[in-house]
Amino acid sequence: MTRSQTPKSLAVLLRARMHPDPIPSPPHAPSPPDSSAPPAAASSSVRQWLHASVSAASPSPAALDCFSDGYRSLDRPGRHEILRSLATDYDVPRARVRDLMRQYVSVSATGDEHPAAEKEDGGAASALYRMERGLRDALRPKYAGFLEAMNAQPGGLKFLAVIRADLLALLGEENAPVLRALDGYLKEKLVTWLSPAALALHQITWDDPATLLEKIVAYEAVHPIRNLIDLKRRLGVGRRCFGYFHPAIPGEPLIFIEVALLKDMATSIQEVLLDVPPIAESEAKCALFYSISSTQPGLSGINLGKFLLKRVIDMLRRDMPSVQIFATLSPIPGFMQWLLAKLASQIKLAERELQDGNSLEIASSAFRESILLPEEEKLLQNAVEQVDSKQGIELLQDILTSSQWVKSDKLSAALKSPLMRLCARYLAREKKRGKALDAVANFHLQNGAMIERINWMADQSEKGIEQSGGIMVNYLYRLENIEEYALSYSGTGHIHASPSLSKYVEPDT
Amino acid sequence: MTRSQTPKSLAVLLRARMHPDPIPSPPHAPSPPDSSAPPAAASSSVRQWLHASVSAASPSPAALDCFSDGYRSLDRPGRHEILRSLATDYDVPRARVRDLMRQYVSVSATGDEHPAAEKEDGGAASALYRMERGLRDALRPKYAGFLEAMNAQPGGLKFLAVIRADLLALLGEENAPVLRALDGYLKEKLVTWLSPAALALHQITWDDPATLLEKIVAYEAVHPIRNLIDLKRRLGVGRRCFGYFHPAIPGEPLIFIEVALLKDMATSIQEVLLDVPPIAESEAKCALFYSISSTQPGLSGINLGKFLLKRVIDMLRRDMPSVQIFATLSPIPGFMQWLLAKLASQIKLAERELQDGNSLEIASSAFRESILLPEEEKLLQNAVEQVDSKQGIELLQDILTSSQWVKSDKLSAALKSPLMRLCARYLAREKKRGKALDAVANFHLQNGAMIERINWMADQSEKGIEQSGGIMVNYLYRLENIEEYALSYSGTGHIHASPSLSKYVEPDT
Repeated sequence: MTRSQTPKSLAVLLRARMHPDPIPSPPHAPSPPDSSAPPAAASSSVRQWLHASVSAASPSPAALDCFSDGYRSLDRPGRHEILRSLATDYDVPRARVRDLMRQYVSVSATGDEHPAAEKEDGGAASALYRMERGLRDALRPKYAGFLEAMNAQPGGLKFLAVIRADLLALLGEENAPVLRALDGYLKEKLVTWLSPAALALHQITWDDPATLLEKIVAYEAVHPIRNLIDLKRRLGVGRRCFGYFHPAIPGEPLIFIEVALLKDMATSIQEVLLDVPPIAESEAKCALFYSISSTQPGLSGINLGKFLLKRVIDMLRRDMPSVQIFATLSPIPGFMQWLLAKLASQIKLAERELQDGNSLEIASSAFRESILLPEEEKLLQNAVEQVDSKQGIELLQDILTSSQWVKSDKLSAALKSPLMRLCARYLAREKKRGKALDAVANFHLQNGAMIERINWMADQSEKGIEQSGGIMVNYLYRLENIEEYALSYSGTGHIHASPSLSKYVEPDT
Repeated sequence: MTRSQTPKSLAVLLRARMHPDPIPSPPHAPSPPDSSAPPAAASSSVRQWLHASVSAASPSPAALDCFSDGYRSLDRPGRHEILRSLATDYDVPRARVRDLMRQYVSVSATGDEHPAAEKEDGGAASALYRMERGLRDALRPKYAGFLEAMNAQPGGLKFLAVIRADLLALLGEENAPVLRALDGYLKEKLVTWLSPAALALHQITWDDPATLLEKIVAYEAVHPIRNLIDLKRRLGVGRRCFGYFHPAIPGEPLIFIEVALLKDMATSIQEVLLDVPPIAESEAKCALFYSISSTQPGLSGINLGKFLLKRVIDMLRRDMPSVQIFATLSPIPGFMQWLLAKLASQIKLAERELQDGNSLEIASSAFRESILLPEEEKLLQNAVEQVDSKQGIELLQDILTSSQWVKSDKLSAALKSPLMRLCARYLAREKKRGKALDAVANFHLQNGAMIERINWMADQSEKGIEQSGGIMVNYLYRLENIEEYALSYSGTGHIHASPSLSKYVEPDT
């Protein structure tokens, strides 16, 4: 399953449109016969700049610029070759690590946990700390200093995000430990560099430069902005848009969030996006987060949204004391995919039982689940207008894959009960490695939200129907519980859900 | 020698005025008889917040705030107690490190430098990378996560700078390895967080808010700003002021630089500061950096100035192509201190020779230096108006310590030749651990400048006379040589000086 190999990431999570640097085609337009050969000349000079940059104690800015210019000019295979070289040729210096370890073990073998507190011998303690520092340094891959120096260059942070986007693409093809180690290290550094302390919150308004506003249009990943009027409304009365900016990437938010000020939690995205006049802001009781978009695919997996949400909530509370409800109206990107996979596997199990007769009945029955309740199945069969020989979950599969059901009121009505029930189960019960399976759910739950309500026919766009059968969910940030919920979710994976959701699902055991 | 214990730092270097957080007095105004006892109650609750913050996997913002508020309310001994606890109780987990090392050595003992490149066995390679990552983590002190979390808090970066300023003060009193290790780690993190990528360059002008401008007045460390007219002139025509700002510390530059646009390199600070009308900017050929001030004592030793200078030069080049000369007019803060120490030691040597007769003559003569040339000594004796029985270097010592010489034209004239010669030697030859002894010289040389010219009576202020006999120096940034000079200085300690300086000193061997 290739899906688990792509890191669960903000890019997936918020479905950032991918805007990687345009990758040029190979310089020689008429490809040579052996077109799989990399453009050797260009790539080798980039490797030389890489070597010059990584080997130097403090790489010269000129070498770093030559490297990044050269890298950007490479085609995809050329870039991948450089990334492999970076990861492999400048890996952890293991021989040195082992030497230092031998020294360390021989000095610290006394089992003394607190060298400074317990002995007068400052010299030995100093030596121990020096060795630990030396070991920490030696355990860093040789490319560590190069990454630091690149980050310090003008434009370097953005370039490193390009590198990481390419690396994630390469990992999708070739999941080698040495590449994963490079990605892990680079991600760790990016997390540090993109610490919330380094990010500035800015409210984006119609007064901002068009160069910035066009980026909002380009990067809006959840509910595409259709035209200038749409954009202006999202920045106008009753609406807010906040971006997180880094000084090294000016004029372009790393992530931005759109907020609607409403009387109550919206039950459908149409209420938010369509052209109804906004309420007076003084009447607003609810701040509804209806879109979060990240702009840099290379920052995938780095949770900038958490701090953004926190700061936006703080700012809104200060500016608008009448707003008491902080909630989202969120897509459920994985629901249909999960449900269809579940249906397919259940159908396969049923077929196997049929083939094998009763011999395996007991064993495979243990994996069979009742997906449709008897009364739901009945309603569904009544709603089918053409004659369909299929029954039960096969019928459900048929209906859902055609996605014509939206046009039929009868089918929609019959689907509402099973889909809402299954969706509640998907959100509140289905997990992967102890965390909510749905990426957006996981995002808000780890930030301390709870699942408040699911809404039928809340997003009737093509994408909404396809992803989640049109269902959307309100996550609620209860100020007095945010920290507690975040803690219990990250500790035990416990998902907080409201009573309105509990009616669909058995209690969490 | 206590001087070597204080880190050679920007604070020393640029003589930042120390503006640490005001440290409150102990809460009980009438001190108890045993006034050395720490305010136990307050300090123990701060320790509890510290413990809550350091022990948690992700410390709660509330606990971090309680800790920082509590810490700020402590008096000096209370703060020092907390710092000792932080350094000692949350040190590197050595037992765990040793366990992980044993595992690592047993797995990687094959001497295989490139696990991924040479074997198919991805599982073993993965395990190796995982262990290396685990070791890197384990070698971090337990307070590492706490520092990261604090930095992510609003106001956290500034608080960590306060912590470090207190720590540096504590290290001045008690130079324990465990405290040095905390300082080293915190400094390393601050360097990362204050990467030039996270800093924004802003030209400070008369249009900026008064809250910012008053900070410039408060923090200007080199040539104090006397009044509003003085400030306005430094921000007006023919002048520039640039600050480096971090998003987490808004409205206050971490460091700022003042620039004068001139026809040529100034030979005295009076030309720059006094009320002569500035030239038309279109006639400027030289950008003279006449003041660099850092504002946070806790960021001492972190070279923000290097990148600031670089970016300012780049910006000026772009905006003012007619400016071709980038130079400083800099103080020489250590010259007089060095010279007086040299004179004292030479006089002591001479006295010992006199006492011991000729027995040690050969041995100690090896340490005797000729500080005054014969003709200089003669001129000096002629210039003394009262009868002074002393001769040679003792006479020089007498004259310099009184600092009345400035008022006598004859004495000044007689001093010019020896002081200029000795100053050139001090700047271009005197070293400590292979680097220029003078902190400002070291700063500009490591940034890639050369010593261009020393100027007699260039700073006639009391401070100028006291620090360097009124001599100032022009460091020159030759665009075509900056990188080369920085590299050769950092590699071999070679100090580039112009021919005009070479006439004072023997060639560098």
